[in-house]
Amino acid sequence: MKNNNIPKGNSEQQIKPYKKSFEYSYTLGAFPTYELILNRPDIVRKVLVHTGYTDYENLSNICNKNNIILEFNNKTIAKISDKENCYVAGVFNKYEEELNEDKPHIVLVNPSNMGNLGTILRTALGFGIKDIAIIEPCADVFNPKTVRSSMGAIFKLSHHIYKSFDDYRAKYPSHDIFTFMLNGSKTLNINDCPEVEKFALVFGNEASGLDDSFLDIGTSIFIPQSPEVDSLNLTIAVGIGTYMFTNKRKM
Amino acid sequence: MKNNNIPKGNSEQQIKPYKKSFEYSYTLGAFPTYELILNRPDIVRKVLVHTGYTDYENLSNICNKNNIILEFNNKTIAKISDKENCYVAGVFNKYEEELNEDKPHIVLVNPSNMGNLGTILRTALGFGIKDIAIIEPCADVFNPKTVRSSMGAIFKLSHHIYKSFDDYRAKYPSHDIFTFMLNGSKTLNINDCPEVEKFALVFGNEASGLDDSFLDIGTSIFIPQSPEVDSLNLTIAVGIGTYMFTNKRKM
Repeated sequence: MKNNNIPKGNSEQQIKPYKKSFEYSYTLGAFPTYELILNRPDIVRKVLVHTGYTDYENLSNICNKNNIILEFNNKTIAKISDKENCYVAGVFNKYEEELNEDKPHIVLVNPSNMGNLGTILRTALGFGIKDIAIIEPCADVFNPKTVRSSMGAIFKLSHHIYKSFDDYRAKYPSHDIFTFMLNGSKTLNINDCPEVEKFALVFGNEASGLDDSFLDIGTSIFIPQSPEVDSLNLTIAVGIGTYMFTNKRKM
Repeated sequence: MKNNNIPKGNSEQQIKPYKKSFEYSYTLGAFPTYELILNRPDIVRKVLVHTGYTDYENLSNICNKNNIILEFNNKTIAKISDKENCYVAGVFNKYEEELNEDKPHIVLVNPSNMGNLGTILRTALGFGIKDIAIIEPCADVFNPKTVRSSMGAIFKLSHHIYKSFDDYRAKYPSHDIFTFMLNGSKTLNINDCPEVEKFALVFGNEASGLDDSFLDIGTSIFIPQSPEVDSLNLTIAVGIGTYMFTNKRKM
């Protein structure tokens, strides 16, 4: 069996460009690395910093405070980052958590684009939804591209990956399900958004959406839109749905 | 003066990878090329098709019907496209139109990302807003990446580029202005969205938003969001703002 652990000590030769099969991943850039350290100090293996980084003192303080190894290593940063201007990188253990039974959820069925997935995590957090179910097959939630596009939001919320929607549903049977579909039966207008405490908003794949079997699960929702477009972008649909349901809930 | 026109006749050697300075641009892929032909046949210079394209007959019919030159040219397609699976490309003249004085507008101040700009065009069209003002400096609205990410929506709406917001405002002084800002004075909740016939929704740059001078222009709007995120993604903010104002207007 392949050993994906990074040995302790002088280990830079072991750190390789990211692969999905690794048990660890990277934050590339100062912003997501700070979010990692501040929110999940327990999963940080080490932080790498470029000798050209201008705010070393602050980074060093925060690493010290959390007992995190901080290491100058321009070569490894260049190796794991495809962007030229990456000055800070974090190495962290992957993790998964149970979702909160009492809170609303967002359920992403087969999201395929890492940039979209990251943007959705950031948007969910922006509207206070911190429990995200992801149904396989799906984009790699820990790929550094997803992490970067989440702006570190991934470390502030819980996500869990399920083999099927049924697996998710069996685990959380009491959530009110709302499936977002182009042929949804209920049109979402601002004067009659459902007011629900414990909802699960379900969104399909970027290209194919949710298949018709989802019409029979809970309430299917259509965001009114012009026939002149094929559909709204997935991230936009998630943004509007999440804004509406969370705003209504707060009223 | 450099001649960017494509000469008639056997011209494939003249077609080069896209540059902003060109007077023409490209649709890469069948979907945006069909949108181009169906909505703006008058600006099409020619259509290029790969010998491996499986739906040649349909494409050929629609080009014939619109008197558009259709040419097999694998080499040129490979040269102008960076994606491997591009089988159809359109060459079209750039254009600019006046905005409709009587319709609502979206105003994008210094959008910097072509993917975002395209997604915003697609979203605007999805909510029936067909008049888009773009304030310089800005991402290239005709770059094939913008065109592709708009899914061809760019050909179904009017856009106009202005040197400054003041230039836009001088031209359309009677629109009700709403500026979307993190320090906006009015919080946008679903039970009190302004109901306006002729609005202009103004959004700033991805990284810097709108500067404080915009607080004094019209009504500044804040989309309520958690302090746990830096801000919402620009495309999400545009999506929510546009959905709300257009949905309210229809009620």
